Amino acid sequence: MSVSALENFQARATELAEISHSFYARGWVLGTSGNFSAVLNREPLRLAISPSGVDKGALTAAQILLIDERAEVVSDHQVKPSDETPLHLMIVGKRAAGAVLHTHSVWSTILSELHATEGGLAIEGYEMLKGLQGVTTHQHREWLPIFENSQDMNALAENVSARLDEHPNPHGFMLRGHGLYSWGSDLRQAERHVEILEFLLETAGRTRQISSSNQGGV
Amino acid sequence: MSVSALENFQARATELAEISHSFYARGWVLGTSGNFSAVLNREPLRLAISPSGVDKGALTAAQILLIDERAEVVSDHQVKPSDETPLHLMIVGKRAAGAVLHTHSVWSTILSELHATEGGLAIEGYEMLKGLQGVTTHQHREWLPIFENSQDMNALAENVSARLDEHPNPHGFMLRGHGLYSWGSDLRQAERHVEILEFLLETAGRTRQISSSNQGGV
Amino acid sequence: MSVSALENFQARATELAEISHSFYARGWVLGTSGNFSAVLNREPLRLAISPSGVDKGALTAAQILLIDERAEVVSDHQVKPSDETPLHLMIVGKRAAGAVLHTHSVWSTILSELHATEGGLAIEGYEMLKGLQGVTTHQHREWLPIFENSQDMNALAENVSARLDEHPNPHGFMLRGHGLYSWGSDLRQAERHVEILEFLLETAGRTRQISSSNQGGV
Amino acid sequence: MSVSALENFQARATELAEISHSFYARGWVLGTSGNFSAVLNREPLRLAISPSGVDKGALTAAQILLIDERAEVVSDHQVKPSDETPLHLMIVGKRAAGAVLHTHSVWSTILSELHATEGGLAIEGYEMLKGLQGVTTHQHREWLPIFENSQDMNALAENVSARLDEHPNPHGFMLRGHGLYSWGSDLRQAERHVEILEFLLETAGRTRQISSSNQGGV
Repeated sequence: MSVSALENFQARATELAEISHSFYARGWVLGTSGNFSAVLNREPLRLAISPSGVDKGALTAAQILLIDERAEVVSDHQVKPSDETPLHLMIVGKRAAGAVLHTHSVWSTILSELHATEGGLAIEGYEMLKGLQGVTTHQHREWLPIFENSQDMNALAENVSARLDEHPNPHGFMLRGHGLYSWGSDLRQAERHVEILEFLLETAGRTRQISSSNQGGV
Repeated sequence: MSVSALENFQARATELAEISHSFYARGWVLGTSGNFSAVLNREPLRLAISPSGVDKGALTAAQILLIDERAEVVSDHQVKPSDETPLHLMIVGKRAAGAVLHTHSVWSTILSELHATEGGLAIEGYEMLKGLQGVTTHQHREWLPIFENSQDMNALAENVSARLDEHPNPHGFMLRGHGLYSWGSDLRQAERHVEILEFLLETAGRTRQISSSNQGGV
Repeated sequence: MSVSALENFQARATELAEISHSFYARGWVLGTSGNFSAVLNREPLRLAISPSGVDKGALTAAQILLIDERAEVVSDHQVKPSDETPLHLMIVGKRAAGAVLHTHSVWSTILSELHATEGGLAIEGYEMLKGLQGVTTHQHREWLPIFENSQDMNALAENVSARLDEHPNPHGFMLRGHGLYSWGSDLRQAERHVEILEFLLETAGRTRQISSSNQGGV
Repeated sequence: MSVSALENFQARATELAEISHSFYARGWVLGTSGNFSAVLNREPLRLAISPSGVDKGALTAAQILLIDERAEVVSDHQVKPSDETPLHLMIVGKRAAGAVLHTHSVWSTILSELHATEGGLAIEGYEMLKGLQGVTTHQHREWLPIFENSQDMNALAENVSARLDEHPNPHGFMLRGHGLYSWGSDLRQAERHVEILEFLLETAGRTRQISSSNQGGV
């Protein structure tokens, strides 16, 4: 790796570790859940990604791996990348994303279960939607697809890839009982998208907790 | 700008950045939502205000702009003030406010949706109301008007301005699906008003989550 | 004041400020709500107490006043003690408390409203009750009386004093729409009582949010 | 104690104090609730354990006791170990656990009450389950047994011990109105199990707050 490539890798690794600690503190990546990646180079693909099975509250920049387009580790690490690497590679390729962040919050877990049979969750009418790239009005309708979960990550990535084509331009999707995937042109934008989608999921979830029989007054 | 005016500007800018970080930590200005201003001078009007499209968890005092009554930037910045500047200028003029704070919490988002058709939300009987300027008893009834959201900020400011006259003396209002605006004679009072109104909105929202069919006992 | 009395006052004032910041961070004393006191001497009575109208997140030890049994300030301060001083003095006298803490949480606000007509809230069967002084089993039934709120603090203190005699040995009471009062033999015990009662109120409130029609299964 | 045994004890005591502060900050061990232990030696048994009646937010490493298999204190302390020591010793023996952590959260309190008559709570279908030792798919069904609470800790430990045999391989259990016990091969694994089970309990509890009559739409 050239000196500038190495510096770039270290800068992204530091940002990924900071995001990991921030998300952990919010309860979005408890246990060993959650994984994060950022593109360093397109041709050939070089992706900085969190390793498998690590506590996200304790993740360090030095633990971030560098992998290629076949998920082979090209940095000097002896551990495996995240089990969900196929999903990251699929999103990076299909959506031209510069960064992919996967969170596992209480609200994404609940809503991905409750709306699984509908195949997704529509979020519409909120000003907060304007924080999503390309959205210019609260009248935007964001359809967040929900896909069945699987332990066969290659099959899951293929299935999501095929189904994702049916949706015009989502900013994320959910896996049932498993949480949220979002992405962006770079880490800052991906982080903002997660923050906004998690806000909207919390808003949708808490609204559902107000029973319809009680909506007539305080 | 004179030395004392500059020092005043820098002091207010520092306070605005501190409020921004505090509100961000509470989840009230996630993404790039929220905006804040403080009056430095009345004649001619000089308003310190947050710039457009900035992450409120990372806002610095150096990023705070100074604008005049036509929203023209008079400080040495090359960026635009908040998109919602017309609302700030309207409130500063109409309500003689010394500071205006706009938050975008989960509860203000939910309640501004649920009560939109009633045109507002009444909050009554709570001791916490006494923290609002001029309120001396918990028996006070605070009517928090709710206005339809719009992306035409000038039209929105005009509309809110006209409708605000119908209400005797509100300490804030909500935009539908968009959050809370509050203000005060200075930044400290405005900050206290936001804290109190957000507390009361959370109280109202969580009370609504207790279904009426369940109110007979624990 | 003797040197040892002064040191004692300063130590208690420091503890009161620490409790204030801790409770503020938990959202229990937002705005200017909440007030705190600790007995320094019984005969004659000397009570360290928070001043009126102060932001509890910014309260300093130097702001803590010393008052006598008639609520006269005996320390070197030019400000008034908390408006709710009559309630503190009543509790200190009637319950032989060494410290009194008043919080104003979302859950105490909600439950003191919902159970006001019953005159109180029963909490029973929880292990957490054992943290209350003198309680040795989870089978304890704690009756938390709720009294109507009033802006006439002297009348309110008298009314609460009379009604409190009807209850065998409460560890706290609520004022309707106004929050919780608790106390203890010293500040540490009073702080623990608040923590436990707030936990139990949150537990009771969130249980109420599970509608009876939904209690048959996940 | 040899130098290496002493160093091992001090290292575990430091970790137990850190876990205590972390859990306290999350609201899982308020008041004097909660207790923690870690095995230092198997033959003869040496267990590092938190003392009785201590504020878990202020617990220091120096306060951690060392006890033997009969709960006798073998370190140089004059205080008693946690009242719930019999449960820790039972779990360490029966489940070959290297560490036992007992939390007392709002959600474990609520759900252990609501599901007490069913004798337990089933959690199934969540990806987060994979963080539990030995679980390899989200299709795992975790049965969290709930046992009646008691103040006779020896009888309680015996009762739980007998009933625990009926369950194949739980990662924790709840005491009714009293909270969660979990364990692991070492402190890190036990801490992860608590984090995961608390997440799943919060998820189950908040799902229950969405009334069935309201599950048809946002």
